[in-house]
Amino acid sequence: MKAVKVGLIGLGTVGGGTLNVLARNAAEIARRAGRKITVTHAAALAYDPQGLDGIECVNVGDDAFALVDNPEIDIIVELIGGYSPARELVLKAIENGKHVVTANKALIAIHGNEIFEAAQARGVTVAFEAAVAGGIPIIKALREGLPANHIEWIAGIINGTGNFILSEMKDKGRDFADVLKEAQALGYAETDPTFDVEGIDAAHKLTILASLAFGIPLQFDKCYTEGITRIEPQDVSYAEQFGYRIKHLGITRMTEAGIELRVHPTLIPEKRLLANVDGVMNAVLVQGDAVGPTLYYGAGAGALPTASAVVADIIDITRTLTTDPGNRVPHLAFQPDSLSDVPVLDMSDVQTGFYMRLSVSDESGVLADITELFAESDISIEAFLQQPSHKDTATVVVLTKVTREGVFNSVLEQIKQLPAVVCEPVCFRVESLGSED
Amino acid sequence: MKAVKVGLIGLGTVGGGTLNVLARNAAEIARRAGRKITVTHAAALAYDPQGLDGIECVNVGDDAFALVDNPEIDIIVELIGGYSPARELVLKAIENGKHVVTANKALIAIHGNEIFEAAQARGVTVAFEAAVAGGIPIIKALREGLPANHIEWIAGIINGTGNFILSEMKDKGRDFADVLKEAQALGYAETDPTFDVEGIDAAHKLTILASLAFGIPLQFDKCYTEGITRIEPQDVSYAEQFGYRIKHLGITRMTEAGIELRVHPTLIPEKRLLANVDGVMNAVLVQGDAVGPTLYYGAGAGALPTASAVVADIIDITRTLTTDPGNRVPHLAFQPDSLSDVPVLDMSDVQTGFYMRLSVSDESGVLADITELFAESDISIEAFLQQPSHKDTATVVVLTKVTREGVFNSVLEQIKQLPAVVCEPVCFRVESLGSED
Repeated sequence: MKAVKVGLIGLGTVGGGTLNVLARNAAEIARRAGRKITVTHAAALAYDPQGLDGIECVNVGDDAFALVDNPEIDIIVELIGGYSPARELVLKAIENGKHVVTANKALIAIHGNEIFEAAQARGVTVAFEAAVAGGIPIIKALREGLPANHIEWIAGIINGTGNFILSEMKDKGRDFADVLKEAQALGYAETDPTFDVEGIDAAHKLTILASLAFGIPLQFDKCYTEGITRIEPQDVSYAEQFGYRIKHLGITRMTEAGIELRVHPTLIPEKRLLANVDGVMNAVLVQGDAVGPTLYYGAGAGALPTASAVVADIIDITRTLTTDPGNRVPHLAFQPDSLSDVPVLDMSDVQTGFYMRLSVSDESGVLADITELFAESDISIEAFLQQPSHKDTATVVVLTKVTREGVFNSVLEQIKQLPAVVCEPVCFRVESLGSED
Repeated sequence: MKAVKVGLIGLGTVGGGTLNVLARNAAEIARRAGRKITVTHAAALAYDPQGLDGIECVNVGDDAFALVDNPEIDIIVELIGGYSPARELVLKAIENGKHVVTANKALIAIHGNEIFEAAQARGVTVAFEAAVAGGIPIIKALREGLPANHIEWIAGIINGTGNFILSEMKDKGRDFADVLKEAQALGYAETDPTFDVEGIDAAHKLTILASLAFGIPLQFDKCYTEGITRIEPQDVSYAEQFGYRIKHLGITRMTEAGIELRVHPTLIPEKRLLANVDGVMNAVLVQGDAVGPTLYYGAGAGALPTASAVVADIIDITRTLTTDPGNRVPHLAFQPDSLSDVPVLDMSDVQTGFYMRLSVSDESGVLADITELFAESDISIEAFLQQPSHKDTATVVVLTKVTREGVFNSVLEQIKQLPAVVCEPVCFRVESLGSED
């Protein structure tokens, strides 16, 4: 059978990795795919041929638009990231009847609805396994591994940088800013770490997972996003005393009232597998009504793990080149004409437990005031801890049972008004994540 | 589009679960698959309609061969287990041009080569996601999620009964026979527990995983199988003192000399995620050259988790009904004409660490004799422990570094000959499983 011709846009970390994986595993890949897969063309503004296997056989130029117009190419692989010109390139490739593979989570989360509609109309596939959790085949698992299930919820560690920082804080008692600096030196975090530490990158990925799980359009703008910059070493340590670890999770859940879609620091029981996923690794826990909990663990970033997902998509598309477009796996797991309009819930309607750390002046009656406020709103307290005073200020940590966030917030407002509360309370959400073990 | 018609052979635990999942998630499944999937016929010698959703709309008979001959049926789902008549039914269904879904690991491990050859020749698909690790989509992960990788090794907890027994032994210090009785009472273990506790069931599954990973024919007869009946509470406890847990693992590894294919109790470092998979849950750790380690966790058995995998296969086949058979995903991940004949290694050539527990009479010079024997064979000792004497007998536990099994066995033979060694040494293998965390 004729070799499949691939055009690669971008020869950076992931582009280079893709070229290398296709070269070094060429024989094994052909034995699986049933035909050879060859990168014939690439576009890059600047690149270093050093370390790029087989680059000498690739026709490299700097015009990516020429690539998507090239009639010789079967599959376009977009690995430049960002919104523009990635969006224009992908749309043009679709218009030209080419299949597309992308690792671009931001592009899919923001422009995915438009892109998939165009692809559907033109009868081509846009594959994006590498956009979520790098090398972990989580999109395939959700879309093709668990399609028998009503998915109930997903909770994932889907940003390796944040997980590295939290793991170091836990293991070594270091503080956030200190570990962030190390992560930047190690190349785990960007010079501008906002996307990672503020949860925007995780929100892009969670938006995609929610659509695949629940059959809803991509709605990044509805995703609640909270970063990890407010976590202090003492919070990690208090959480530990209660039997919890703090992880930066993306959580999406189908409830009767609507869909929860949120990224935030979360206390989870230390015995959960997810609590034991450390360093830059990612893991996604999926709860289905038939299968129960399943977990998928692996490298969420890096040249070769991401290339593993990109090349898997190329092989997948290779297999569908002769199929009837109407019978392919739908982009967002559900047929495009049967997406649902279940609303995304406002955060005030989300139900979780809460961790609250307070500094209070050491006077009698403060604890009674606080517990009274919780009791008045019917919020049960799961655990309570008061640390010995330091300069007339005591630290109080409260762990609540599950409550509606709106109710908790009104109690929080009242607590802030108490004269004995000397600075802004620090609060994080708590999730039990069912009984996965 | 016309509904897909399914004929179900077997209405036991998994058959009932399949019927129920298809009924209760019918709408969601149709939104994913793009058409309705309906069980129109079923065959069962005896069954209880109680609790079977929608059974009143199914044409139930007792002649499974009539089912596979029925021209109305598109997909045959074989859920009776065992070799015969399952093999004859599946081959007849293939001959009749029907696609087949099966959860029968024994059938695939033993007769898979014959079955896939027949299916290939007839242009139909035989899907078997439910045959390995129940609801975990591990076959899809290996075959379609990681096809870019040269798979280096796989290590899995792929028998829930054995894992339940070992978890209870660890958590509660109970002994094997005691927990086995409870597992039988809970329905986790069969009245004849041989298949589970002797590792035969795990060997069936490992045989399938090895073929998918390495592109070799199914070779169950080459799989080394050792059960968990010799593990005593003291072994669990000594392992713990060394920082290890004992798990019943299926391990397959590609080495330069050949493929390792083995099921046996294994000490693994306690910090590995795999070491923390407890109870009846399954997990499979896959090491690929590009992606690194990935882990897949979930329920390995049970009506609904297994049905989740069966129905995923039905949906997959539904999507391929109109595709060109030549471009489908190959049954064993690699194209049938490009399977390799890499040999399965003899156990004497396999390299692992070893745990050895000895009872020795309490006389001077014994330890020197033992350590001398290891040193003579160039086997390095990782850890050593001697328990205080009891009635003039001391317990000695040795943990070795990685060595070739043949070399270890010859040392073992010499140790057995030492006059001070008072009973048969107990030995288990040790694996570090790379640096997954």
